[in-house]
Amino acid sequence: MSTSLTRPVLAFITDFGLGEADIGVMKGVIAGITPDIHIIDITHTVPAQDVALGAWILSTSYRYFPTGTVFVCVVDPGVGSNRIPIALNAGGWYFVGPDNGLFSPILQEETVYGVVELRNPAYHLSQVSSTFHGRDIFSPAGAYLAANALEVFSRLGPALDPARLVTLANLTPVRHGTAIEAYIVQVDSFGNLITSIPLSMVPELFTAQHTQITFPQQRVIVNQRRHFFAEGADDGQAFIYGDSSGYIGIAVRNGNASQTLGAGYKAPVTFDTLAR
Amino acid sequence: MSTSLTRPVLAFITDFGLGEADIGVMKGVIAGITPDIHIIDITHTVPAQDVALGAWILSTSYRYFPTGTVFVCVVDPGVGSNRIPIALNAGGWYFVGPDNGLFSPILQEETVYGVVELRNPAYHLSQVSSTFHGRDIFSPAGAYLAANALEVFSRLGPALDPARLVTLANLTPVRHGTAIEAYIVQVDSFGNLITSIPLSMVPELFTAQHTQITFPQQRVIVNQRRHFFAEGADDGQAFIYGDSSGYIGIAVRNGNASQTLGAGYKAPVTFDTLAR
Amino acid sequence: MSTSLTRPVLAFITDFGLGEADIGVMKGVIAGITPDIHIIDITHTVPAQDVALGAWILSTSYRYFPTGTVFVCVVDPGVGSNRIPIALNAGGWYFVGPDNGLFSPILQEETVYGVVELRNPAYHLSQVSSTFHGRDIFSPAGAYLAANALEVFSRLGPALDPARLVTLANLTPVRHGTAIEAYIVQVDSFGNLITSIPLSMVPELFTAQHTQITFPQQRVIVNQRRHFFAEGADDGQAFIYGDSSGYIGIAVRNGNASQTLGAGYKAPVTFDTLAR
Repeated sequence: MSTSLTRPVLAFITDFGLGEADIGVMKGVIAGITPDIHIIDITHTVPAQDVALGAWILSTSYRYFPTGTVFVCVVDPGVGSNRIPIALNAGGWYFVGPDNGLFSPILQEETVYGVVELRNPAYHLSQVSSTFHGRDIFSPAGAYLAANALEVFSRLGPALDPARLVTLANLTPVRHGTAIEAYIVQVDSFGNLITSIPLSMVPELFTAQHTQITFPQQRVIVNQRRHFFAEGADDGQAFIYGDSSGYIGIAVRNGNASQTLGAGYKAPVTFDTLAR
Repeated sequence: MSTSLTRPVLAFITDFGLGEADIGVMKGVIAGITPDIHIIDITHTVPAQDVALGAWILSTSYRYFPTGTVFVCVVDPGVGSNRIPIALNAGGWYFVGPDNGLFSPILQEETVYGVVELRNPAYHLSQVSSTFHGRDIFSPAGAYLAANALEVFSRLGPALDPARLVTLANLTPVRHGTAIEAYIVQVDSFGNLITSIPLSMVPELFTAQHTQITFPQQRVIVNQRRHFFAEGADDGQAFIYGDSSGYIGIAVRNGNASQTLGAGYKAPVTFDTLAR
Repeated sequence: MSTSLTRPVLAFITDFGLGEADIGVMKGVIAGITPDIHIIDITHTVPAQDVALGAWILSTSYRYFPTGTVFVCVVDPGVGSNRIPIALNAGGWYFVGPDNGLFSPILQEETVYGVVELRNPAYHLSQVSSTFHGRDIFSPAGAYLAANALEVFSRLGPALDPARLVTLANLTPVRHGTAIEAYIVQVDSFGNLITSIPLSMVPELFTAQHTQITFPQQRVIVNQRRHFFAEGADDGQAFIYGDSSGYIGIAVRNGNASQTLGAGYKAPVTFDTLAR
């Protein structure tokens, strides 16, 4: 049902901010190397230097892209220091960026076929700055990989041991009896709160009669689990839903949960399913 | 004078907000179905759940796109409820989104060749969430349509009667004698106010010596109708112009009309051409 | 190492603002003329009508794009007046926009092969508004040029004398003894201050023991010149670095230089290398 022509796909996750000319410049570099490429911006609004959120966005996005897609991820507070620029071949996709934990979820969830250090200058721009590896190292590597990964991957530089890559502290929620301690990992543009709790971890949340949710500033008792935003009464009460990212979300119908509940990005949150 | 190769075009109008990873994910889904597609963002900053403004932006944009373009429009407060996901074949283009009034102007202005309900799971993602039909239903339908609309359209689901689609309350301005009552439908990034009055409706505005414009907070007498922004004296006075959208606009030269006149999006506005 | 297929590239620099539907409409016009085009947004957030900053962004970006790229630059306070719409063939690239100084750096730095006035209506939209030449004149010209510049360029309109184009006042920094007077030309999304001083102009800044930097609101003595952001102590002190744009930057490690130093876009700044 689809056209037969395939085109290489390169997808960006960065903390450069919206409207930055630097993003356009990286795309110019890429178009000069691989003209027939389809460049997709996943996001450029990872909070500045927030590697953990960058990793989370990558982990909830990459499975929706065609196999062979190259993800260029630049959340890189250590640019120019001795952190290592890498490319990763895992689970059918390629990942390019700094070795600082951005790729932790990929290492955890996918089969890793290889990791290389981006040390071969033939795949860099001819002049490499010390402050903009996104343009000078990561974008060229991504563009060459997207065009011809089978030949290019092993030439990008020496192989690394995947077991030695930087990984982030585990963000997996913790259980204490009926309580689950977690974090808000994203506030979407409608003010919905997305937690770090995978849907598969908490089937009881969708059957319990009441759930107590504790934020730093307030505590609410929720007795509604809705399957979509338009369901139920327009009563301004918070409800729990299964977010499309695969994680538990908290919303207020036709309202802004973040404002109503006084909770934002990184806020700790505890769910407790009360006795029936 | 153009190249002979044609590529399918898919254009987005949503209220997802700038920088949302969800937009990138939809593009990943689309690239996996129709690799050779050209995806164009018309806007993702429709105010949250504002179906009427989404419809207005669509109505002022679609004619500039090549025929065959598929418009995927996701301003969808009812996602997951019993509102119907549809595709529309009208006037040479295709339109995909919820049946909630977004396509009212298309139904009014173009010949409708067919409407279908997007019920065929062969054209959905394999798992359909209840909160993200943009990714799971609308983007796949758009991608398949863009690649091969002639074969795909009728297979997307059962035909619907165009006369039964949801339409919005009429936003057409109302005349009372020499007065025209209307609304501000957009404030552009320069602060210019764009009204709901089509240029063709009010030839007298461009010949009257004086026009009185009444906003909720103030009333001004305008005696200038300029044809471009740089024309005339730099006097800080408001003037009327023909906006490139095809509607009457109000601007202040080298100034911000929205701030100067204390009027924003959705403000009522009355024009009255005074006796000469 | 790259694919052999070449695709025309068109890159945008405008002050339209993020999320504006007008940008999507221009892309629709372009896709209708040259379907196989790769459109890249360099930036749409040039401050409104700030021709000088638009010129600076163009000057730091264009060299990273493949030769043949067409840059459509719309920072155009004089739209509709008697300023002249032009196309410029210089240094291997093409530039389209108003003759208002936007292309000053190109005229200064590249060999000019030709300039034409965009007067031929065969390369305009069939209806030309007086307020949106980006859509009606510049985008069509850019799309036709990108597809086939060799044939199209001379047909766009009559040739102009490059020496008669509008140029901006010289922004080159001025030396007074050991002092250099310059400006902040950009504040990036991390708060780093980028000055108008080319790296090549001031080798002494990277060898002097102390440099005094004077802003309107404060004066600091800097004794650190770092090569990358993660280098050195995390002491909250300002430091000088070579920005990837090719200009001197001022940053604060893991901090926001613009806030710390109370200096923003267009602030005057004086560097003085003190006696050792």
